[in-house]
Amino acid sequence: MTKEKYPAKSHARSVSAHLFRLSSNFFGTTSPLFLLASPRTKYWPFCDQTQPFRQNRNFYYLTGCNLPDCYLTYDVADEKLILYLPEVDNDDVVWSGLPMSLDEAKAAFDVDDVRYAPQLIDELSTIASRIVFTVEDLSVEHELVVSAVNSKNISLKTADPLFLEALEEARLIKDEYELRLMRKASLISDNSHHKVMSTLLFSSNETHIHAEFVYHSLRAGSKNQSYDPICCSGRSCSTLHYVKNDENLKGRQLVLLDAGAEWNNYASDVTRTFPISGVWTTEARQIYDLVLLMQRECCKRVAPGVNWEELHLLAHKILINGFLEIGIFRKEFTSEQILESRISAAFLPHGLGHTLGMDTHDTGGRANYSDPDPLFRYLRIRRSLEAGMVVTVEPGCYFSPFVTDEWKTKECWKIVDESVLDLYWDVGGVRIEDDVLVTVDGYENFTKITKDPEEISKIIIGNEIN
Amino acid sequence: MTKEKYPAKSHARSVSAHLFRLSSNFFGTTSPLFLLASPRTKYWPFCDQTQPFRQNRNFYYLTGCNLPDCYLTYDVADEKLILYLPEVDNDDVVWSGLPMSLDEAKAAFDVDDVRYAPQLIDELSTIASRIVFTVEDLSVEHELVVSAVNSKNISLKTADPLFLEALEEARLIKDEYELRLMRKASLISDNSHHKVMSTLLFSSNETHIHAEFVYHSLRAGSKNQSYDPICCSGRSCSTLHYVKNDENLKGRQLVLLDAGAEWNNYASDVTRTFPISGVWTTEARQIYDLVLLMQRECCKRVAPGVNWEELHLLAHKILINGFLEIGIFRKEFTSEQILESRISAAFLPHGLGHTLGMDTHDTGGRANYSDPDPLFRYLRIRRSLEAGMVVTVEPGCYFSPFVTDEWKTKECWKIVDESVLDLYWDVGGVRIEDDVLVTVDGYENFTKITKDPEEISKIIIGNEIN
Repeated sequence: MTKEKYPAKSHARSVSAHLFRLSSNFFGTTSPLFLLASPRTKYWPFCDQTQPFRQNRNFYYLTGCNLPDCYLTYDVADEKLILYLPEVDNDDVVWSGLPMSLDEAKAAFDVDDVRYAPQLIDELSTIASRIVFTVEDLSVEHELVVSAVNSKNISLKTADPLFLEALEEARLIKDEYELRLMRKASLISDNSHHKVMSTLLFSSNETHIHAEFVYHSLRAGSKNQSYDPICCSGRSCSTLHYVKNDENLKGRQLVLLDAGAEWNNYASDVTRTFPISGVWTTEARQIYDLVLLMQRECCKRVAPGVNWEELHLLAHKILINGFLEIGIFRKEFTSEQILESRISAAFLPHGLGHTLGMDTHDTGGRANYSDPDPLFRYLRIRRSLEAGMVVTVEPGCYFSPFVTDEWKTKECWKIVDESVLDLYWDVGGVRIEDDVLVTVDGYENFTKITKDPEEISKIIIGNEIN
Repeated sequence: MTKEKYPAKSHARSVSAHLFRLSSNFFGTTSPLFLLASPRTKYWPFCDQTQPFRQNRNFYYLTGCNLPDCYLTYDVADEKLILYLPEVDNDDVVWSGLPMSLDEAKAAFDVDDVRYAPQLIDELSTIASRIVFTVEDLSVEHELVVSAVNSKNISLKTADPLFLEALEEARLIKDEYELRLMRKASLISDNSHHKVMSTLLFSSNETHIHAEFVYHSLRAGSKNQSYDPICCSGRSCSTLHYVKNDENLKGRQLVLLDAGAEWNNYASDVTRTFPISGVWTTEARQIYDLVLLMQRECCKRVAPGVNWEELHLLAHKILINGFLEIGIFRKEFTSEQILESRISAAFLPHGLGHTLGMDTHDTGGRANYSDPDPLFRYLRIRRSLEAGMVVTVEPGCYFSPFVTDEWKTKECWKIVDESVLDLYWDVGGVRIEDDVLVTVDGYENFTKITKDPEEISKIIIGNEIN
């Protein structure tokens, strides 16, 4: 049985359908062509070492090809998809071996033809008067193409917003092939998170956690992480985009590990928080149980038609009720008053989640980062859920002086009982994040690594088999 | 005791001394200023994820600062070195915590003052008529600086070849601080290579070797590899720049692992070749012993004044004698005739080694890639050794059809006995690479991981403690 190909042509048809929906008038008089490029091979300055390569996501979506220095054209009218490979550099063969041949590429990719890139220049001269949709700014690194286009009086729509939107909307809804890749990425992440927990007592520094996660991902064949792993501990757990990953764990309560393996350019994005000793402190467990309740209540409501802003609000409402119970919020205020004041954003400053796909923060979320409402400014999904979307569900609760200092100057800070709050700074932060597919009748949670606090303790302490 | 600072000012003085030596007339009428930038923070296209950051090596050399979005100026006349940090972005503090303050930077780096970057624009206006030496093409991503320079009628020498040469010559000779960093990088690589060998029987795929090496480097605090690890096996060992790292080891003879940890931007670069089962085949051991002889004979001759081309020739001479003995080269030809024919380049197409420092292929080698002589075209050092240089000594021997096919069409191919050669294709390739400092009276080999074939077998099979 031959291996099923990445469904590039189906993706191209989906993009052109979206483009037609968005701007049907473009199709009246012209026969549009998509022209995309994969990144050029780049070197570090004054150095013969290549920079890390990351495939252009839109290019991969329309080819399934993971090579640099390529082009693609898609003719909307006759649905013809052509991939252009870089010409073979004979000098390079001696050092790097033979590159993929035209025939091998034809067998590997779901395209109508494969040619060498210089042929694209010739072919562009036959399509004068057609609209050519591009995405990248080809003028920067693809001078050859641009000069061919310019000299032939072709109308080049560079970074056309409607074309971008068509690509983003197509990518938002995942097909079965993509979902298989994402389930595989999640599986590797599950295993790597489990390994981090089960070896935690051998780790004395955040970098050991980092190394353990990367090791098990790479060993399973995941060459890249979806994003730089966030491996924080103690008070650093409140730094949302922590990058240091090099502090000692000694004397701290929690580790927060936000890390996801990538599989064939598809991301997973998983966060677990767990006690460094295997034993939860009273305060850490209180906050963990609260975030777990937020996460489970939001997760189980995921379904087509559900408004994401409502789920985000639900997370805040549960947090507010929890803080009233714990005493961090004063009981003379009602939960409605507290929600209205927006003070809960001081402890949950980010959004409930985001779309997930080839990019970790994937397309189609329609965020509004200039929203004046602090509860929604960083919410990355501002639309209703649809079947085929994959989203992260990742509520959290943080005790960050950088964030609370901003809120202390506001009237609503009176809601906070600082004498109670002061017990929680060492908890740092808790986040629990799963990757969830919206299905026609609800959801499928790709993330299987446990979030049960007792089970996590058992994995860390090693009592799993007792 | 305070931690010793990276000697940035000493480096700046060394660069200006070299610049003066190269172009003393520049200093007669003007007071030169060096202006360098660290890379800007960059995002992947249409994505909120930052691209991997790698510090500009020249910038690091003159500051010891590993941050993006910075500038430095060095006033040659009064030896004043100033570092400019990016302004604090308050929005970012909420997500990423506080960046390094001016005072913290002053305490951390060997500079005369630390300021915020916008101040540089103001200060450039006071230095009109001075020559400003830059390296990067600041016009691409540093528009602010360039517009300030242009509007003030400052003479900007962008990527001035003499300034570049001064930087490269200064970087070529390492000081004690740099050597300590390089010894540390080597130590981590030694340990990681040892771990790969000692777990080899648990590895069934090249990616397991990759994962094992990266794991132990990262666990020891090396956040980056000096270069992408080359983890090849069997016939792939003949692919010099192998990148796949994903083939099964089953049924193959050798693994060739070329991998080096980085420490504070300083590289190590180490290759070991070893038998997958722990047991050498007759042919693999023949070739290994030959390369080991080449490596040891070249290594022990490293000293100031030694001509690197002579050492490279010595490696070829030993290879030729070995091939005569084995019978791959026919005995009716003398070793002199064979050397003259250049046929040995079909089996050792690369050079004996290269300078090593912040770049894996570091500065100052003076390679000549258009040399018509195939024996020297890829030799990366074309000068005599000096104390303070660090070089790799890395002879190899490869059986690559891509390379030999090019030689089969030549007259000198008659020297090769193909019936003997055919026994060696499955050996693939052998390379042994150490990192060696040229000292005043000889050399110091930073690389301690064993290259003894019997010891390697013992580590793999696990008899070390018997």
